[in-house]
Parts: sequence; structure tokens; C-alpha cells
Amino acid sequence: MRILVTGAAGHIGSALVRALASRPGPAEIAATDLGAPGFDLPRVRSLAGDLTDAGFARSLITPDTGIVFHLASLVSGGAEQDFELGTRINLDATRDLLESCRLAGRRPRFVFTSSIAVYGGDPPDPVTDDTPPRPRISYGTQKLVCETLLNDYTRRGYVDGCSLRLPGVLVRPGAPNTALTGWISAIVREPIAGRDYVCPVRPDTRIACISLGRVVESLLHAADLSSDALGADRTVLLTGISASARQLWDAARPHARGRVSFEPDARIQAVMDTGCKATLSARAARLGFRHSASVEEIITEYLATLSPAT
Amino acid sequence: MRILVTGAAGHIGSALVRALASRPGPAEIAATDLGAPGFDLPRVRSLAGDLTDAGFARSLITPDTGIVFHLASLVSGGAEQDFELGTRINLDATRDLLESCRLAGRRPRFVFTSSIAVYGGDPPDPVTDDTPPRPRISYGTQKLVCETLLNDYTRRGYVDGCSLRLPGVLVRPGAPNTALTGWISAIVREPIAGRDYVCPVRPDTRIACISLGRVVESLLHAADLSSDALGADRTVLLTGISASARQLWDAARPHARGRVSFEPDARIQAVMDTGCKATLSARAARLGFRHSASVEEIITEYLATLSPAT
Repeated sequence: MRILVTGAAGHIGSALVRALASRPGPAEIAATDLGAPGFDLPRVRSLAGDLTDAGFARSLITPDTGIVFHLASLVSGGAEQDFELGTRINLDATRDLLESCRLAGRRPRFVFTSSIAVYGGDPPDPVTDDTPPRPRISYGTQKLVCETLLNDYTRRGYVDGCSLRLPGVLVRPGAPNTALTGWISAIVREPIAGRDYVCPVRPDTRIACISLGRVVESLLHAADLSSDALGADRTVLLTGISASARQLWDAARPHARGRVSFEPDARIQAVMDTGCKATLSARAARLGFRHSASVEEIITEYLATLSPAT
Repeated sequence: MRILVTGAAGHIGSALVRALASRPGPAEIAATDLGAPGFDLPRVRSLAGDLTDAGFARSLITPDTGIVFHLASLVSGGAEQDFELGTRINLDATRDLLESCRLAGRRPRFVFTSSIAVYGGDPPDPVTDDTPPRPRISYGTQKLVCETLLNDYTRRGYVDGCSLRLPGVLVRPGAPNTALTGWISAIVREPIAGRDYVCPVRPDTRIACISLGRVVESLLHAADLSSDALGADRTVLLTGISASARQLWDAARPHARGRVSFEPDARIQAVMDTGCKATLSARAARLGFRHSASVEEIITEYLATLSPAT
């Protein structure tokens, strides 16, 4: 069997590929991203290519593909700035993959990373399984459209889908990307790495959060869940604890050498103010998905991944 | 100014074109459908073409297009039977029109006919403004996707959108089409026309309904509403009174020469049983949309449109 991972060079994707490679079994792991992800791992085959090229997207679904983890996307800020590119990556490329599955006729499990960006317009706090999605950014719109299509492709038997609405995932390593939620990682990562950080939102700004470890665990769980357990509605909201910028910085501070200051950016602040502050999913719990227990747990998990040289 | 009507040869489309042509004003009405709609009306120009041809769809939005009424679709049964064609007409063609508006840069009012088919999975009775859509047919999926995109295109300033979730519209003239809800019109139309009718659902089967006259009135109202009144959420559920097959036949019977019998079709019955039985929208009322008052009112409206020769 082949397991496909798109966005495999990303924060979540690369952690997922490492987790898949560490599991026993004969499955080949096809890891794809714009640049060839440089995994030196058994059974992992790297494939470089552009998912917005429909031919490339279509070529990724081979007759023996049993699981698709579709993680590739242009993140929130990027999709807001470049509507056409966001549409091509976040919407059209997903459709190309779904169509490829339909035409291949083998009904793979299709795990899709959606986002709490589907909520907007001042949703309840916490957001629950019953909260209607009302996206107020293009990224959230594109994710919601793909969830909706994935449900129908599943109902028709073209794929066996599961969309996970991910809370803000931290701690993301490396340089900031264009995600509007990039601050939740940077406010931890930068001062711990000894760099000062100017946070673009107010200290009281809150967002639903989850650790990278829990997300990888959730993706693997989503791949293993039975179709019967999932039922007709294939979108699962993951529980994300509420974390304010202040709380994240307070938890990071004992381990930090850099400092944090706050200079709110009106555009980012507006999205955060009318977005999702916390999520609580009884359904995710029933299905066996686990959430992060506390901000401190998330920071502790991150510290354990750092080499002493960082 | 130009007013574009797609699906102009259809039941709702042709009534809308006649209503538009009867209003004073200099606007040209571009009426398009697969075959040239044969309107002999002032200011109406008929354009024959296939909306699934992206070039044709794009050509319809001219620099002076101020209002788009996008009604064209492959109805529910057809989209369920032919997934590819349904996707092309109901999803891709809508995107082509939206893209054309975006590229033209003139932000027309874009009135889109969505449907209560976005509700499924045993929704509450009645469905209200707070009911989350959970489509269980491809037609409903495609309508929901277009609503979601229309909201984002509106937020970004590419169009000034308004989607109306239409209840079952009756009485549709002519031969039955492939809509799963075709029975709500046929159970009235056929016996009144002197033909016997075999209804494909049980007598107690209920669905939210509205008359053709109220729908045309609602479309015109949607075109005239201010952007401020609509706000950020551009999808409006219309109130549809609950009508059972038995109630519809009872109301038609005094005017009928044909008879009705019931032979439930399992596929149609299943969609009706897990779909929307009635809708009640406080928001539609606040915005000035009117609903049908009773089954009898709907039948009376229909009888008034019939020529003595029918």
C-alpha cells in the first residue's frame, strides 16, 4: 500500500512523515512538496512538484494508494493576499486530488487538514460541534468548500474521507510564514531562541490551540478510524484550548532569553477578534481524539524537541 | 445597465424575465439558456449557449452588467445521476461567472438561487436561520459550495452577492424534470390537467414549499436590497410552509379531473425523509421577503395562470 502525504516539507507534514516511517509495516510513504522533502527515512519516497499543476496532482494517486494525507495549502495570510494562488492551491488542487481518487476507483481514506479558520463573524466561545461555520477569510472559505466536497465524495463512495478542523498548531519552527496565526508560535519560539519578538496582536488576544504532537497523533488516528465510527458527517472539529498571547508568553518566559513586546497589526487583530477563541468537541472525544491539556504542556512538549544548541 | 438571467428558459427564469420586462426602466435584459429562450418582450435579448463552456460563461458578464440572476442548474435528481455534469453546471459554471465578475471589476449584484437541498441528515422541523447545512445529495453540496464562495467574493468586493435558499417551488408546468422534488408540482399539475399521477412518495411526506410568484418577487427583492441590510452573511433562507403530498392532493382535488395514487420510490423517499420539512426564517422576514401563506394560496395562484384550454 502507498500512503501519500502532501505538504510533506511543512511543519505538520514533516512530523507526520517521521511518525509514519516509525510505524512498522510495508507501506511506502510518498512525501510530496514543492521542493523535494529531504527525508532520509526507510520507505519514504520524496516527490517534488507543484500541486497547482493538475497533471502532477493527478499523478500522485496511484492504483495502490490506500491513504491520502492532504496537508498542502497556502496559509491564511498568503491566501488573503493572493486570491488566485490561494484558490489554486487550497481549492483546485484539492479537487484535482479528489477527482484523481474518483477516477482511480479505489476509495482511499482521504484525511484533509481543515482549520478553525472556517469560523468567523464572532462565533460563540467556545465553538462546539453545533457552531455553524461562517468563514471571514478566503483561507477559511476554501477549507470549508473542500470539507463540503469531501463529504459528498465520501457519500458517493469515491473516497473515504475525514476532515479535521485544526486549532492553531504550535510551536512551528523556523522563520515566520504568512499565516495570520503565526504569532502563536513565534511568541514562544523567538524568545526561547534568544531573539526579541514584536507580537502583532494585543496580550489579551485568544485563540484555540493544540500542540504539534497532538495533531500528528490526530492525523494518524483519523487514518485508522472506521468509516462506521465516522458516519455521514466526515468533518471533525478538534478541541483546542484557549490561549492568550499573554499566557503563551508567560509560559515561555522562564525558558526565554529574548523579550516580547506588543504592537497590534489592525488587520491581524481584526481576524483574531472575530474568530474562534476556543473549541470544545464532544464528538472528537467520543471518536478518541485527544487535545492538549494546557499551555504549559504545549511548551514542555516543544522544549523537549529542541537540541541543546538551539 | 444590463441584467443577466441564466437559466432563463426554465420555470423560474422565464417568469423572472417576464417580471423584469414589465418593470419600467432602460435596462437591457440578457436572457440565456441552452436553447435561445424565445421571449418576444421589449428590452429582452436572448442568448443561447452552454454555461459549462467557460468561454461562453465568461462572455456573459459585460462591462455594463449591473445585476446577475444566476438560476441555471442541473436539478437534484440529474446531479445525483450524473456527477460530472452536475459538477460542471452547478459548481464550475458558477465559478466561471464569479470569476468573470471579479475580472471585470464592476461588483454587480449577484443573486444566486440556492436551495433547501443544503439541509439533510434529519434536520430540525422547522429548519431555521441557525440550522447548520448538512447536504446529503450532490446538488445540495454544489449549492452550498457556491453560497460559501459567493460570501467570500462579496467580502472581497468582487461581487455584491445574495444567495436565496429556495424551498420547493410550485407549480412547475410542463413535463416532469429530474428534480427529486418534482412530485410537489406534478401532484397538483397532472390531475388538474386531467392526467392520472403516480406519486413517488408516501402521502405523509412533507417538504417546505413556496409559490412561483413569491419566488419571483423574492428574486426581485434580493436584487434591490441594500448591501448594508444584507450584512456579512449573504445567504438568506426563505420561509417555506410545510406541505404533505396528501395536503397538496387534497387542495388540488376540487379542481382535478385526473386521479392520484401513491407508489413510493425508495431513493426519492429516503431523500425526502432525511431532508427539510419546513423552513422558518426570521431574517428573511426582517429583510422584507414574503412567504406563501397556505397550500390553498399556492394552488389558487396556479389556477389563475392557467388558460381555459388547459
